[in-house]
Amino acid sequence: MDNLSDIEILLVEDNPNDAEMALRALKQNNLSNEVLIVGDGEEALDYLYSRGKYADKCPDHHPKIILLDLKLPKVDGKEVLRILKNDPEKKIIPVIVLTSSQEESDILETYTLGVNSYIVKPVDFDNFVDAVREIGLYWLLLNQQF
Amino acid sequence: MDNLSDIEILLVEDNPNDAEMALRALKQNNLSNEVLIVGDGEEALDYLYSRGKYADKCPDHHPKIILLDLKLPKVDGKEVLRILKNDPEKKIIPVIVLTSSQEESDILETYTLGVNSYIVKPVDFDNFVDAVREIGLYWLLLNQQF
Repeated sequence: MDNLSDIEILLVEDNPNDAEMALRALKQNNLSNEVLIVGDGEEALDYLYSRGKYADKCPDHHPKIILLDLKLPKVDGKEVLRILKNDPEKKIIPVIVLTSSQEESDILETYTLGVNSYIVKPVDFDNFVDAVREIGLYWLLLNQQF
Repeated sequence: MDNLSDIEILLVEDNPNDAEMALRALKQNNLSNEVLIVGDGEEALDYLYSRGKYADKCPDHHPKIILLDLKLPKVDGKEVLRILKNDPEKKIIPVIVLTSSQEESDILETYTLGVNSYIVKPVDFDNFVDAVREIGLYWLLLNQQF
């Protein structure tokens, strides 16, 4: 892991295969230098709020984007989203949900909670890699963050 | 203009040159079938809320995405954004700000208001076309809307 305050992409994903695929896709596009992968929502919040094992992280640093799975241990993705989007300091971080769920109720609820973008994980490996590349290029190179 | 309830992209842009460039970029990528261009924030709200000259539009229809300039006559882009993101029924529509402003205060304020994405208009024509293409492909083909 790079220095905690250099992290540009926070990937919250409990499935090691999906996390590995996403990391490979980012690496293929030179977008993987500063990725932190965490496996549950509690650790994501610990990182973002500089708590627990991340207590040494500068509290003012935030990643450029958060890639967030919905079904997560401990604290689920929607709760993470709810906390971030209700926090004036954190709501400015773009959150892209990356999930296998195509449920309309999930799509509606996450947009209502203020998600920036909702991507359904392609099942096919090549399509998954393409999607992650497109997400990385769009959010890290074209989109402007604060 | 196509049928009002077929509109997929609402482009709110008062500069005719920028509107024309964006439309050409969308056309080049077969994304222009259902674009409505309006020149001020008031007309954008009239369309979205089926008022005024758009009173015949089905109130339940909403576009897949809104491309929103910030500096607009009558009702400015931030006010349009504020209204939409405070409306539980409209906040689920992705709003992409497309502006010439690189001011940090504009970026911060629009994210705080709940913008989905903030894109600075490239000055160069080819780069502008590339950016609009990328926006269209990302939001219309990859991103999931409700």
